[in-house]
Amino acid sequence: MSDQRTDPAVPAAVPEPPYYAVVFTALRTGDDPGGYDGTATRLSRLVRDVPGFLGEDFAHTPGGLAISVAYFRDLEAIERWRQHPEHLAAKRHGREHWYERYALHIARVEHSHAFQRS
Amino acid sequence: MSDQRTDPAVPAAVPEPPYYAVVFTALRTGDDPGGYDGTATRLSRLVRDVPGFLGEDFAHTPGGLAISVAYFRDLEAIERWRQHPEHLAAKRHGREHWYERYALHIARVEHSHAFQRS
Repeated sequence: MSDQRTDPAVPAAVPEPPYYAVVFTALRTGDDPGGYDGTATRLSRLVRDVPGFLGEDFAHTPGGLAISVAYFRDLEAIERWRQHPEHLAAKRHGREHWYERYALHIARVEHSHAFQRS
Repeated sequence: MSDQRTDPAVPAAVPEPPYYAVVFTALRTGDDPGGYDGTATRLSRLVRDVPGFLGEDFAHTPGGLAISVAYFRDLEAIERWRQHPEHLAAKRHGREHWYERYALHIARVEHSHAFQRS
């Protein structure tokens, strides 16, 4: 099964500021009980149904760092996603098995810009 | 020459909020005049000398999206880096040759958290 989350075609559309970005940078353990890829794909589908979710970017250097950036309209939308039962369970499982280290940054976007080759 | 920027060992250290995150997500053209890797390595060294620069995360899905997140103490530090002559030249060159699409999000980090396996 392909992991759609690891292969977005293009950068996510840039919303009108202000909005929020949740930056998650992680290094994996290499252990994979429970199936990381399947869970990531499932979560990337679930988050689309969260009111206020605006989009997501994802990149993963093989054997190295993975970065996801999820965009939300406001802190209330982030809180909705934070409290989602499947998301909570996946985070707990991730800390127990999948992640060696991670960092999370919740930030209010004040300015944004997009470029597309003509 | 290895590109240090594409292979950070671990997520960047999490500073005390508030600070700023500059999220840059890009899709490359595949053309490489001027040498993207060498320029990226050079810039990742130069930015460390910018007062107020706090760290950087980078990940790149082969053939897909690249994401860099640079952390700065304040908007003044971001402005210093934005006006750096070599950075300006690289951005211009990037728009002309390297990037198919990109998005830039400048955001004030209000909350952050780090996890490390014990």
